[in-house]
Amino acid sequence: MAAEPSAHELIARHRPTLDQALEAIRTRAYWSPHPEHPKAYGEHGSLDAAAGKAAFDALLGTRLDLGQPGTDDWVGGEVSPYGVELGVTYPHADLDVLLPAMRAGQRAWRDAGAETRAVVSIEILKRISDRTHEFAHAVMHTSGQAFMMAFQAGGPHAQDRGLEAVAYAYAEQVRTPAVAEWTKPQGKRDPLVMNKEFTPVPRGTALVIGCNTFPTWNGYPGLFASLATGNAVLVKPHPRAVLPLALTVQIAREVLTEAGFDPNLVALAAERPGEGIAKTLATRPEIRIIDYTGSTGFGDWLETNARQAQVYTEKAGVNTVVVESTDDYKGMLSNLAFSLSLYSGQMCTTPQNLLIPRDGITTDQGPKSYDEVVADLARSVDGLLGDDARANGLLGALVNPDVKARLEAAAGLGEVALASREISNPEFPDAVVRTPVIVKLDGAKPDDEAAYMSECFGPVSFAVAVDSASDAVELLRRTVREKGAMTVGAYTTDAGVEAAVEEVCLEEAAQLSLNLTGGVFVNQTAAFSDFHGSGGNPAANAALCDGAFVANRFRVVEVRRDA
Amino acid sequence: MAAEPSAHELIARHRPTLDQALEAIRTRAYWSPHPEHPKAYGEHGSLDAAAGKAAFDALLGTRLDLGQPGTDDWVGGEVSPYGVELGVTYPHADLDVLLPAMRAGQRAWRDAGAETRAVVSIEILKRISDRTHEFAHAVMHTSGQAFMMAFQAGGPHAQDRGLEAVAYAYAEQVRTPAVAEWTKPQGKRDPLVMNKEFTPVPRGTALVIGCNTFPTWNGYPGLFASLATGNAVLVKPHPRAVLPLALTVQIAREVLTEAGFDPNLVALAAERPGEGIAKTLATRPEIRIIDYTGSTGFGDWLETNARQAQVYTEKAGVNTVVVESTDDYKGMLSNLAFSLSLYSGQMCTTPQNLLIPRDGITTDQGPKSYDEVVADLARSVDGLLGDDARANGLLGALVNPDVKARLEAAAGLGEVALASREISNPEFPDAVVRTPVIVKLDGAKPDDEAAYMSECFGPVSFAVAVDSASDAVELLRRTVREKGAMTVGAYTTDAGVEAAVEEVCLEEAAQLSLNLTGGVFVNQTAAFSDFHGSGGNPAANAALCDGAFVANRFRVVEVRRDA
Repeated sequence: MAAEPSAHELIARHRPTLDQALEAIRTRAYWSPHPEHPKAYGEHGSLDAAAGKAAFDALLGTRLDLGQPGTDDWVGGEVSPYGVELGVTYPHADLDVLLPAMRAGQRAWRDAGAETRAVVSIEILKRISDRTHEFAHAVMHTSGQAFMMAFQAGGPHAQDRGLEAVAYAYAEQVRTPAVAEWTKPQGKRDPLVMNKEFTPVPRGTALVIGCNTFPTWNGYPGLFASLATGNAVLVKPHPRAVLPLALTVQIAREVLTEAGFDPNLVALAAERPGEGIAKTLATRPEIRIIDYTGSTGFGDWLETNARQAQVYTEKAGVNTVVVESTDDYKGMLSNLAFSLSLYSGQMCTTPQNLLIPRDGITTDQGPKSYDEVVADLARSVDGLLGDDARANGLLGALVNPDVKARLEAAAGLGEVALASREISNPEFPDAVVRTPVIVKLDGAKPDDEAAYMSECFGPVSFAVAVDSASDAVELLRRTVREKGAMTVGAYTTDAGVEAAVEEVCLEEAAQLSLNLTGGVFVNQTAAFSDFHGSGGNPAANAALCDGAFVANRFRVVEVRRDA
Repeated sequence: MAAEPSAHELIARHRPTLDQALEAIRTRAYWSPHPEHPKAYGEHGSLDAAAGKAAFDALLGTRLDLGQPGTDDWVGGEVSPYGVELGVTYPHADLDVLLPAMRAGQRAWRDAGAETRAVVSIEILKRISDRTHEFAHAVMHTSGQAFMMAFQAGGPHAQDRGLEAVAYAYAEQVRTPAVAEWTKPQGKRDPLVMNKEFTPVPRGTALVIGCNTFPTWNGYPGLFASLATGNAVLVKPHPRAVLPLALTVQIAREVLTEAGFDPNLVALAAERPGEGIAKTLATRPEIRIIDYTGSTGFGDWLETNARQAQVYTEKAGVNTVVVESTDDYKGMLSNLAFSLSLYSGQMCTTPQNLLIPRDGITTDQGPKSYDEVVADLARSVDGLLGDDARANGLLGALVNPDVKARLEAAAGLGEVALASREISNPEFPDAVVRTPVIVKLDGAKPDDEAAYMSECFGPVSFAVAVDSASDAVELLRRTVREKGAMTVGAYTTDAGVEAAVEEVCLEEAAQLSLNLTGGVFVNQTAAFSDFHGSGGNPAANAALCDGAFVANRFRVVEVRRDA
């Protein structure tokens, strides 16, 4: 263990990182302090691949004792989508003990100030980063992501999103100075002079409700935004994806302790099977902030019922790609094939509806009919996933039986343009690995509309035949307005169509990727540069990350005195 | 009428003001571009006292035709608290015509960008400022404020709050650059390069629900915050305080038209007596933002029911002053006397409960018993208001019969330490002018608690006897936590008591004024420097003005393309 760092030492160590992050969110140019390549780890205290794997293996079958007050039981039961029983148990909390205990350290954390909170948060992220290889296995074996994706999305990309939230939180808190002298002229009389002090104060205890598919990536923004603004944070992981967030909590508690703060500023709320403590927690008076990623149903429930809290939700949406024309047909097909395949479409950003004119599209390879486009896309997916090793590396495993059931049902919704295939995973024979299905639907048929206007989470895409480009644009508008969207994509060489799609996205507040044919995909966003969601359509009430995501997690209290 | 200004000309004219406002909210030093002194007006196109009065007089008995679409009737009926029937009528709107018409100009307003929206907003404020004398009469004869207060609070101070909101809105929108180039290294391969565009987009149409007592001061922050972030704004004034906001809407529509925008970006929704259109409007799907000042009951209703909108509320609270000790007994008494008297206590910031140890306090004039403190404060109020002309100038008129009824009932709640007196107003004989009542209550008596733990809006204060300083601190905490507070004051020379009061204010998020004995009063806040409310206790869910007040009134839409 490193020598215990003082706040002063942490400022010296991490202030440059904070400043770079602040500059990055201002310019939105590319930046990341967290290496994406697995081989970049192994020096300066970070675990290399072998050490990370060993650390993960050593966790299996153990009790992760976080030293939390009010622990009344030990709970666990995670089974990896790859078939491995993790066998890790976690503290189960008596909330009437744990929640009050989480208040004890809040005053010192508040008084530490925004800069100290930022650098302590960055130290937590640094230690998580050092254990990226270990986290990669934890994310892989809870989400079902393939290793490389679990490594990158669950590691550096998640850490980036956490750091981005720290930067926004810090910037927001220092917009108001700590002190001000206010001198108001009074004509010939003496001026009025006042001394004013401004202190960012936390709202109380924040709750992070984690999701199954991206426990760290979707969990870190809220966790670090709340912590860096002075709140205590209770992390309620998804019952099938506890380990990555439990490790996060453990590291946070260690760093807080070493920096002289109360470890109970961050705690875990694991639950018994079927206990459903999210509802109980979300309406506790101590909980003043909630971050949630998951179903629209529960997200809406939180927004309606957790009235004592600020509620930030990312819910379901129906992501659309308009395919109208392209000057790089091959690039379009391979880009789309990758987007549909990555993590078996189990991303909130995966395109679901591909809107294609029934009269076909123009391309650099001549006109292509609707049927040709769909068939060529199917072939492109087949080609991408033709090699089982590569397929396993892209698809990962289906995260739960619901996804498999939806996938199987999807084949009955219309004509199957690309059937889902079962892929065997030699390393993990119990993993359920499936290629995506593409189903043809008719945008004009009411029966089909019921399918394409609902989120079908998983490796299911609909090639929706539309009457025209303008029909596509209107269907896009209606889909975003009624169902929400985390992402919108479009392929067009027509300036008018491009402008129309842009206008829909501006009016309905959806994030748009245009004519992606290279190595960037509609379902990926980069911290410090891309917004994840807009917070302005039904898919999410918040965006990662902006001022609105942090500004209401604290309040500023002013104390003024006659000078 | 001035020559029609282009956006470019407005930028040249007002960018320096915007920059100064941006600097002011950053340093929170004193600044205002709006003169407080009535004699400062009359040059550079502004109306002097006589011209302002004439302009107001010319409005009486007229129809204020704003040229709004969907006008289906003319409504009015304001009667000044000073007894004058204004006789002004306003357009009554068919919402099914007006609300759709308000959408027509939103795209051009959005595309104009943050800077143009800021300078157009500042031009609106400039023209309001030029007519400050006219507005002063309009505010006086709707709110019942005395002329000088109506002039200052309804004029320059309200304009300051509007400009402050414009500055915050602008700053928030330009935190994200308009464009970015993102270049991600790919080792030996070519980097990924993307071009990104970021556009602030409005939420839709905003609703401002005005209040009776401060139509402009409380109305301008929301109005200008929403307008400057790209939204159309529908202003629903209090039926007894329409004129100041109707003039504001008229000016806004003129400026928008001259600058080349659709005047329907700002519109008025006046109502028939008893029509109660606020509820109808607040739940219309077009309304995406609501700003409200008024009762806790309706504020809570809005927060619960207007789920399609971002809701910013300022509601009722119970403001407390802890009187524990002072080294300037005379200054304390005169400062408190002024605070209790100003506008007959009809401010959301007026102290209600004065917590005084029953064993008395220490002062620079020796120990003073509870009874002495209360009697001396009563004498101080009497002295301040002993001259009828001065009393009229400070008190103004009671805004409505409810306030009078509460004032009369208050005398029955306990021992009256200072009885309310009737003051005659020679200029306006029908004005209901009353001096404040001070009632003694016992903090330990449950019957008394029912009185002091409720907001008694108007010229009513309670001198609450408490057991000790720590009892006062705990009662303060309980009051803020349960009832909310817009302001807290304290008088103490004891460092421990001061620290305890500060800690309560930090923990319960209340704005604190300490030991005010001069020309600044607990019920006054200055734009660009003081926060009005905290947004963190039950009195209000927003503070004027901070990042949170503006950040969620727009969203940022990103369009990205392969470079």
